[in-house]
Amino acid sequence: MSSSASFFSDLLTSITEQGRALLESRLGRPGEVSLADLCEALLSGRGEASGVAIAGEVLERYRAASRERKLAFFETLRDQFGTDTDEVRAALDALNADPADQALLHRLHEVSEPRRQELIRRLNLAPGGTRALVDMRSDLLSMLREVPGLADVDRDFEHLFSSWFNRGFLVMRRIDWSTPANILEKIIQYEAVHEIKGWDDLRRRIGLADRRLYAFFHPALVDDLLIFVEVALTREIPGAIGPILAEERAEITAEEATTATFYSISNCQNGLRGISFGNFLIKQVVEELRRELPGLKTFVTLSPVPGFAGWLRRSLESGDAAIQDLVSEPQREALAAGAWATDAAAAKPFETVLPSLCAHYLTREKDKKGRALDPVARFHIGNGARLERVNWLGDLSPNGLTQSHGIMVNYLYDLKFIEKNHETYAATGAVAASSTVTKQAKLVPDAKPLVPAA
Amino acid sequence: MSSSASFFSDLLTSITEQGRALLESRLGRPGEVSLADLCEALLSGRGEASGVAIAGEVLERYRAASRERKLAFFETLRDQFGTDTDEVRAALDALNADPADQALLHRLHEVSEPRRQELIRRLNLAPGGTRALVDMRSDLLSMLREVPGLADVDRDFEHLFSSWFNRGFLVMRRIDWSTPANILEKIIQYEAVHEIKGWDDLRRRIGLADRRLYAFFHPALVDDLLIFVEVALTREIPGAIGPILAEERAEITAEEATTATFYSISNCQNGLRGISFGNFLIKQVVEELRRELPGLKTFVTLSPVPGFAGWLRRSLESGDAAIQDLVSEPQREALAAGAWATDAAAAKPFETVLPSLCAHYLTREKDKKGRALDPVARFHIGNGARLERVNWLGDLSPNGLTQSHGIMVNYLYDLKFIEKNHETYAATGAVAASSTVTKQAKLVPDAKPLVPAA
Amino acid sequence: MSSSASFFSDLLTSITEQGRALLESRLGRPGEVSLADLCEALLSGRGEASGVAIAGEVLERYRAASRERKLAFFETLRDQFGTDTDEVRAALDALNADPADQALLHRLHEVSEPRRQELIRRLNLAPGGTRALVDMRSDLLSMLREVPGLADVDRDFEHLFSSWFNRGFLVMRRIDWSTPANILEKIIQYEAVHEIKGWDDLRRRIGLADRRLYAFFHPALVDDLLIFVEVALTREIPGAIGPILAEERAEITAEEATTATFYSISNCQNGLRGISFGNFLIKQVVEELRRELPGLKTFVTLSPVPGFAGWLRRSLESGDAAIQDLVSEPQREALAAGAWATDAAAAKPFETVLPSLCAHYLTREKDKKGRALDPVARFHIGNGARLERVNWLGDLSPNGLTQSHGIMVNYLYDLKFIEKNHETYAATGAVAASSTVTKQAKLVPDAKPLVPAA
Amino acid sequence: MSSSASFFSDLLTSITEQGRALLESRLGRPGEVSLADLCEALLSGRGEASGVAIAGEVLERYRAASRERKLAFFETLRDQFGTDTDEVRAALDALNADPADQALLHRLHEVSEPRRQELIRRLNLAPGGTRALVDMRSDLLSMLREVPGLADVDRDFEHLFSSWFNRGFLVMRRIDWSTPANILEKIIQYEAVHEIKGWDDLRRRIGLADRRLYAFFHPALVDDLLIFVEVALTREIPGAIGPILAEERAEITAEEATTATFYSISNCQNGLRGISFGNFLIKQVVEELRRELPGLKTFVTLSPVPGFAGWLRRSLESGDAAIQDLVSEPQREALAAGAWATDAAAAKPFETVLPSLCAHYLTREKDKKGRALDPVARFHIGNGARLERVNWLGDLSPNGLTQSHGIMVNYLYDLKFIEKNHETYAATGAVAASSTVTKQAKLVPDAKPLVPAA
Repeated sequence: MSSSASFFSDLLTSITEQGRALLESRLGRPGEVSLADLCEALLSGRGEASGVAIAGEVLERYRAASRERKLAFFETLRDQFGTDTDEVRAALDALNADPADQALLHRLHEVSEPRRQELIRRLNLAPGGTRALVDMRSDLLSMLREVPGLADVDRDFEHLFSSWFNRGFLVMRRIDWSTPANILEKIIQYEAVHEIKGWDDLRRRIGLADRRLYAFFHPALVDDLLIFVEVALTREIPGAIGPILAEERAEITAEEATTATFYSISNCQNGLRGISFGNFLIKQVVEELRRELPGLKTFVTLSPVPGFAGWLRRSLESGDAAIQDLVSEPQREALAAGAWATDAAAAKPFETVLPSLCAHYLTREKDKKGRALDPVARFHIGNGARLERVNWLGDLSPNGLTQSHGIMVNYLYDLKFIEKNHETYAATGAVAASSTVTKQAKLVPDAKPLVPAA
Repeated sequence: MSSSASFFSDLLTSITEQGRALLESRLGRPGEVSLADLCEALLSGRGEASGVAIAGEVLERYRAASRERKLAFFETLRDQFGTDTDEVRAALDALNADPADQALLHRLHEVSEPRRQELIRRLNLAPGGTRALVDMRSDLLSMLREVPGLADVDRDFEHLFSSWFNRGFLVMRRIDWSTPANILEKIIQYEAVHEIKGWDDLRRRIGLADRRLYAFFHPALVDDLLIFVEVALTREIPGAIGPILAEERAEITAEEATTATFYSISNCQNGLRGISFGNFLIKQVVEELRRELPGLKTFVTLSPVPGFAGWLRRSLESGDAAIQDLVSEPQREALAAGAWATDAAAAKPFETVLPSLCAHYLTREKDKKGRALDPVARFHIGNGARLERVNWLGDLSPNGLTQSHGIMVNYLYDLKFIEKNHETYAATGAVAASSTVTKQAKLVPDAKPLVPAA
Repeated sequence: MSSSASFFSDLLTSITEQGRALLESRLGRPGEVSLADLCEALLSGRGEASGVAIAGEVLERYRAASRERKLAFFETLRDQFGTDTDEVRAALDALNADPADQALLHRLHEVSEPRRQELIRRLNLAPGGTRALVDMRSDLLSMLREVPGLADVDRDFEHLFSSWFNRGFLVMRRIDWSTPANILEKIIQYEAVHEIKGWDDLRRRIGLADRRLYAFFHPALVDDLLIFVEVALTREIPGAIGPILAEERAEITAEEATTATFYSISNCQNGLRGISFGNFLIKQVVEELRRELPGLKTFVTLSPVPGFAGWLRRSLESGDAAIQDLVSEPQREALAAGAWATDAAAAKPFETVLPSLCAHYLTREKDKKGRALDPVARFHIGNGARLERVNWLGDLSPNGLTQSHGIMVNYLYDLKFIEKNHETYAATGAVAASSTVTKQAKLVPDAKPLVPAA
Repeated sequence: MSSSASFFSDLLTSITEQGRALLESRLGRPGEVSLADLCEALLSGRGEASGVAIAGEVLERYRAASRERKLAFFETLRDQFGTDTDEVRAALDALNADPADQALLHRLHEVSEPRRQELIRRLNLAPGGTRALVDMRSDLLSMLREVPGLADVDRDFEHLFSSWFNRGFLVMRRIDWSTPANILEKIIQYEAVHEIKGWDDLRRRIGLADRRLYAFFHPALVDDLLIFVEVALTREIPGAIGPILAEERAEITAEEATTATFYSISNCQNGLRGISFGNFLIKQVVEELRRELPGLKTFVTLSPVPGFAGWLRRSLESGDAAIQDLVSEPQREALAAGAWATDAAAAKPFETVLPSLCAHYLTREKDKKGRALDPVARFHIGNGARLERVNWLGDLSPNGLTQSHGIMVNYLYDLKFIEKNHETYAATGAVAASSTVTKQAKLVPDAKPLVPAA
């Protein structure tokens, strides 16, 4: 993989002295040419003969800049590289006179494009440009709240990245123990769900016959990953994460497995936030595994329910009577104290009620847009998966207890039904669930209606 | 290279039966779902769960369609997937009320985007989508003249391809005799300037120490090329193509060479017409060669002058006195008859006047936009190159005689001056030329002014 | 493949000046150090510190030498680098005293090894040494007849090459249209059975769905082949070569095929004569194809019978009555004239008798060692294959007519029976043949006994 | 690298049922065929048609056997697969009659070869055979002392391995942080000189600009290493190992370095003991680095002196007066106690005497064959290196103190002088040393003569 790295370092990397002098003379002033000047030169087309070099210089100067100067650069993008309102005004006037003219409509579309978009496209001319622009957006995202109006700038990055990182340009690769170490160390670093505790732990996840890891790469981000998913091949649907990550366990051969469990999925590039890959990756891995291992019949996730504990606390506090009736005062205290999970006797009283409340939470609780309230549910249900099982005591890690009261759930990917599930969910908000889960949810009597009022 | 092909055939390739039934039921009618229906489903987002499959089906059906049905498909794209004028109207109204509101401006930009653009992006989800879309545009370009309004459709393809085939995503590779044969046969097929006459001829161009060939690839167009350039390493600037392509000639080592001559550059993808790569490729090759072979001091082209003979004929016919005075009636007849070139005595009278007329043509004759009239000159001069030399009897092939009266020219790429040359040309239309060429051009007395009136 | 080439050119390539001066001073004479001197220095161990360099110098000087000097070098190897007879004498004396002493036996084995063997091993230290030594033996083989005693030298090369080119060190690769051109051109050059008429013909043999080509490589012979076999995937056992090599024919998919036909097998390295690879290659290809295409049930060759026409002519001439009775005088004349094959009427009289004679020839005629007389039969029958079918009018090329009277035969590789067939043949000389072939052979009445007298 | 693994698992892996029945019937007894029987079948040539399968079965059965059965197998090799003494006797008789007959000499050499050698060659036919045979010899070496006569068996392994692992078949590769993890974990495991403490430590040795690691591979030992050397690029010759391995240190660029220091060299395959690679590896790395980094002027080792402390103790004990005089009684006690090194005051008294004794030890103390007594010195001096510097307090690790009294030394590889150094050493035993070291050694007055008496 690394051999292709050289492709991207093969270009003229600085503007010639003559070019710089030219820029300065054109700008009518000696001395340092500013980043904004360079951007204007790049956009003007007059710098076309050395566009690659100018783009490289902008990106390099940006990279080396302080946080203050970076912020100032984004403000420049916001203020000086937005839509040219004079041009829009002219196009509007023309269009007002003849509202159906396609050429005028097209002209309007063109001139209403913020100048930033073309600037970003041209910055991408530089070797390593895509990498630098993704990092630039990562900076930008961290500043959005500080400065008003930067969201406009971000919208343009997101628009272009959606096109550039189109699924058609992504490459899926299996990661295993013969993958170069520089890729593997990134896996360790990027894993966001169940921390990888060093190289031995990593090897247990990719180097054994019943474990797999697949990732999406983009050719322009050499030696880096976009997203990856970890898979356990098992003989049944697992209900807890502990046995999957255990140091000592009975390995099976890939051919013995009937079930593929997606137990962790991690996005790797902060600068690509909002560009969705997970849906495609899961489905492609399902296809890949089906082809390689015909014995696999079931494809599920083993997922946390990150919003459950928070939702339950709020429900109990806010006086939702149907919920409150199911949890006694001592139980509430035990939940808040958090010590119940490690003691079988203390856990017993929750064994029925918590999974039921969780089933209710996942299938009926919605956000303002009528989507599943839980973010992980929103992702998988939106992909057309079905909520298959709610597992009691699935994740007893501190984080698992704090967020999900120890519960983990399985979402089932059945390619035959994902379209129908997705369609129904999109149209009505109804969450596809197994009959068991549906029954569990019914323990909560006075439930909210399945679909929020229109 | 071919090993990566499998990445792109790794996806679910057809909509499930359930998915198709769903589409049909949603459309309220049984039977065949039309291409337009599928495109709507893809755009609607309701088909999101199986977007990859729907995109694949659209592209496969398109591929298998007759020319009539393809044309009908483009008409559908023109008529049903243009800009949503109601939305534009609403956005206009809002903006008319508050012309400076950035969010409204952005909204206007969004809704004025033809729906085709998002459709094309989603079609690219399919495995092999980019390849199929490039081929689709190739079809479209061949139909532009037949059907009004298809240029609007093409504009959207071109806009997206400009972004997708941004120089930042291209990969340059050297092609040599150890390159896979399936790539090499494409070189033979694509060469557009000096035909490659089979594998032995190809080997002479890539397998010898003083010959090079470099190409741009795009990761999504597996095993195919975008553009390539052929280079001869020589001891001086060559004036004729014959010795370069000769079967028998004295080979030199790469280290002995002082000059790299770009003697052929060919675009390979008809569907990418209008997306410019040549400028970047030449400059990257210059950089690559400079690094590898420090002995190289001069980088030139050996180029045809494809518009020269036509321009001269028109000038002589149209009664341009300054030109007519330089060419006697018998000479005109000899030129028209075309037999002069192979006979030294017959050629002698043209030895001074034709190169001078050519120098004049290249440096002073402009199109309506003030650019060099000759298309090859327009390209190299626009890149910042300098017209270095006009070579008498450079290409005695039938084509060379018919188009260029046998003349070939050298454009010099001197990285130190390309910015300045480009800038001057862009600002004033002045063509950078060596003093020799400038002197030659002056033989044409009553020359047009160097720059067209504003 | 070519990327690994650099590994082998990565070494110090000449002895230092100091090293050369040292050699000269040691040899007690100034001036040119001879090849023999260098070889002695290499063997002496005193040159150990620069063994790689000395070996490289010997090989380079050899390569550049004239044929005379090469011959002289081999004579030196014969005369000065044979067994050290003094040492053998001493070891013999010791062993005569105590004939069962293992250490003495071992000592005898060591000292009876010609010094050439260690010399050849040390020459292999040089980068590219294996390649150079294979070429050296190719020269040697061409001189064997000219000079007495060179066979002794050759025996040492053969002994070492048998070990170095052990099947365990060979790598099988499929060759197809995505193979580098420098490998493909060697295929064209090396094909020895059915000439490849240029790149288009090659493409028909490797670039279509129902054609395959597999080769053995050795890691030390970078970018070169040892042996390759061409395979046609068909729906039945073919009886003629014409349809297989035809420019126009109906291609089938690999999955439709039931039969794999090995229609050409070519050794590539003259310098490896006598080192057998074909047996291993055929069997490995059978295994490979069985795994990839479970639909393949039959593995056969389509082979010439190169000794048939010569044997028949000799039999008719030498007055073997049983044979003579089967061929009338006019038929003999027609056979000798050779014009019968292209004329159906003229061919008719031979339709039964020639295949029967051929079946007889292949199954019953033996050489002095009791092995099949025909060299191709000897190879396949020795591998455990069975003579399956004798095909009338299988190869009407001039060569096919001259050598085989147009007959081609199929040898069947049935892995279940190859051991038994081989064993029986090795023990008794009996050639495994189908019942049809056995019946055909019986037309020749007074046949030689199946097995030669002991 | 791992992609080529599949080449070697591509063969028929078991004898067919028919083949096994055949073997049994031939052996005249039903039931299990023994390992010895299989070896005889393999050697007999009668099993030729399935030689690959038989070889595979022998190796697989061996692999799965207990230590007892493995030992029994080696005894069988010793007793039943040695030299055929009858044949030797016959050859001897013939040769006694005509002692100068080359053909008889050659015959004698052939028949005196133990049958084991051909057996081992044929075992190598199996896929993975070389790997299995190297592991087999590793077992054998561990049993040599237990059982008399196994050294004869080992000699045959060593003879063949010397030929198969000839330097001409080795491939050098740089190992860095983009190397597959399965190779890297072997580096961690094999490092024998300065332990690698996990992946972070490894990364410091291969992932930084001023560190290198090079290894030899053999194509038949897929994904495994033969030997590797670790290199530090520095600005001067280092005198201590601590700063080189330190977690925190100032990194320099490769271009800034003037000196390449080989600070660790590790053999990886126990089964290849006695086959020498280190000499070639060091010299090839020197060449590689010189080409890549012309700024490198000095190539040295930083080596332990593993025999020094032991030799000194013995010298003091055995009453060598010249040595005893240099070390006072309290000093001897301090040395024995070992606590002096961590205390500057306690170390002071040794600062001159220990390095001098070490210089003496390295340059003058010889083994019975007249070679340097210290094993590491023997290796580098034998390669033609020069003892450049003796470093006080170079390695304060427990091991460094115990073996070398904390001293480390530099051997200098100057390609210009390695031949002369090697030659002088081979002829006279004289150890090449810098003038400083020579002076230090002279502190030991009544030194042994430089070269042992003949």
